[in-house]
Amino acid sequence: MNDSSDKRTELSSVGEFTLIKRLMAPFQNSNASTILGVGDDAAVIEHDSDQQLVITTDLLVEGIHFDLSYTPLKHLGYKAVAVNISDVCAMNARAAQIVMSIGVSNRFSVEALEELYAGVHRACGDFGVDLVGGDTSSSIAGMILSVSAYGYVLPEKLVKRSGAQIHDILVVSGDLGGAYMGLQVLEREKEVFRSAPGAQPQLENYAYILERQLKPQPRVDIVDLLEDLGVVPTSMIDISDGLASEVLHLCDSSEKGAMLYEEKIPIAPETIEAAKEFNLDYTTAALNGGEDYELLFTIRPSDWDKIKGNPNFSAIGHITEEHLGTKLITNAGEQVELQAQGWNAFRSKN
Amino acid sequence: MNDSSDKRTELSSVGEFTLIKRLMAPFQNSNASTILGVGDDAAVIEHDSDQQLVITTDLLVEGIHFDLSYTPLKHLGYKAVAVNISDVCAMNARAAQIVMSIGVSNRFSVEALEELYAGVHRACGDFGVDLVGGDTSSSIAGMILSVSAYGYVLPEKLVKRSGAQIHDILVVSGDLGGAYMGLQVLEREKEVFRSAPGAQPQLENYAYILERQLKPQPRVDIVDLLEDLGVVPTSMIDISDGLASEVLHLCDSSEKGAMLYEEKIPIAPETIEAAKEFNLDYTTAALNGGEDYELLFTIRPSDWDKIKGNPNFSAIGHITEEHLGTKLITNAGEQVELQAQGWNAFRSKN
Repeated sequence: MNDSSDKRTELSSVGEFTLIKRLMAPFQNSNASTILGVGDDAAVIEHDSDQQLVITTDLLVEGIHFDLSYTPLKHLGYKAVAVNISDVCAMNARAAQIVMSIGVSNRFSVEALEELYAGVHRACGDFGVDLVGGDTSSSIAGMILSVSAYGYVLPEKLVKRSGAQIHDILVVSGDLGGAYMGLQVLEREKEVFRSAPGAQPQLENYAYILERQLKPQPRVDIVDLLEDLGVVPTSMIDISDGLASEVLHLCDSSEKGAMLYEEKIPIAPETIEAAKEFNLDYTTAALNGGEDYELLFTIRPSDWDKIKGNPNFSAIGHITEEHLGTKLITNAGEQVELQAQGWNAFRSKN
Repeated sequence: MNDSSDKRTELSSVGEFTLIKRLMAPFQNSNASTILGVGDDAAVIEHDSDQQLVITTDLLVEGIHFDLSYTPLKHLGYKAVAVNISDVCAMNARAAQIVMSIGVSNRFSVEALEELYAGVHRACGDFGVDLVGGDTSSSIAGMILSVSAYGYVLPEKLVKRSGAQIHDILVVSGDLGGAYMGLQVLEREKEVFRSAPGAQPQLENYAYILERQLKPQPRVDIVDLLEDLGVVPTSMIDISDGLASEVLHLCDSSEKGAMLYEEKIPIAPETIEAAKEFNLDYTTAALNGGEDYELLFTIRPSDWDKIKGNPNFSAIGHITEEHLGTKLITNAGEQVELQAQGWNAFRSKN
């Protein structure tokens, strides 16, 4: 439990509506498109008629998607919002509203939920979205969060996964593998704490990768930057499961192949450092680690001049004919088939 | 478990994306407003610029909201959609899309999930909505469903909870208490089955109330009927928690009081019959049972002529000044304060 408050108010001591009122108190709607927020049978939204609405949703289950023994509730709330906004960005759209439902057992206090919602509130402020609805329920085991995000985009700016063309350049924002290495640090500290309760966590040297894991930043700025640069990607996806898995999704949806270059994959020095310490291959962390929430997209070769040299972007390969498959050219010059070893909720966890 | 198929395909034997493809196969989009459905980072919706979008969401947790020992999975899928569409109706809007996320443990087979989605598919067909998105996750304990529904309404037709005025007439559609009595029958059969496994359930005489519990029908037809009659309610809510609780919500949001008449509350003969058999007060079932998914609304006295005599509607009371409170005049002529004893997920279950 990560309840930083001393006070503990039992959920059973407040009614559902009192609880909702208390949790919603800090929230104010800031978007013109939000007509009616929490408090009726439904929220009401109105947007410019020339824009399309994009809808995305994620289900986050304790013990599957998050571990409260090292995830502060405030960070969990923040991340639950952030990862959905990342999906909106992946459509080249701008998020404006979210809806969050929560299921919790009586093991959580009202104050713990306030911590969680403080993180949601912070993320709503950081990314300019309104919390307009949700549902509150008890749960028999653990915490469940269901978040949906709503965003807007002009039809001609909408980017799907399916539009990649042969010779398009594969580009990724930011750097990869950091969130996965942050997770390794947290898992190690959890083990240390188990064997020696009271041990002080050794986290100072890992600020960057821990932030990547605990407080991911959806690349809202990249959507703006692409617009400023006059670039509409031909296809786009956000990196939640790892680069390999996302490249395969793009190629599958677009019915194309791809050629990637290991040496081009952007990896932060902090990530490389940590990978060495943990005896892990940093390229594997980037390819299969996931949770970086960077944007992977393809652009026409004619758009290359608009983005080359921009430090936000790395060109990592190009799109090929489908029958050529999805290949990685390793630093050793070998050509290997790209494999998704990312997240598979059913196979690896249970 | 309610897996009617003989075959059992383990969830762990199929990947998440194969599973989603298999579950989504029967679904086809039918609404013009659905631009892009399942399969990208987000769904895309486009609607007439003169309409507002309403969004509602529900979290359904096994052991809290449903009991799979007597709820067939197909009915569960149907009901999960139906109750959300009911919330859209309560805004006087028409539903067009839903999004459903599901968390399940490996105790469920692929075939069991197909049963569940068969119910979702049936409901989508019955109510003309498209399933456009969702998330699939494993769960440590039991099944979790998170459903959101999206509907459209002209701003001048939107009905909130907060618009009731003094002297407005309180009207309810259909009849109440049936779903609660259906639940009593199912709970009794569960007990019988526990003490004598293999006993055949005795359900023939309870068709109406079982249908009310297992296959609720959101009153889409009432939204249409009100439009045909030229009536825009001043306030509206759907009856999920019981009449008493919903009247209190309407009055609370509208800052008004209300006077209800027990003798006016519409209750089906089958519900009265079952209540007698179970030694329960049928008015209590109607007031506090919940899950009837009828619509409760208020109309201006000047609109009364348009709906009186219509068998779909019962006038059950009227709106009063707030300081007069919310009162029920019993059949015995007594005036009692209306109390919500409906669903409180945190207090009563855990």
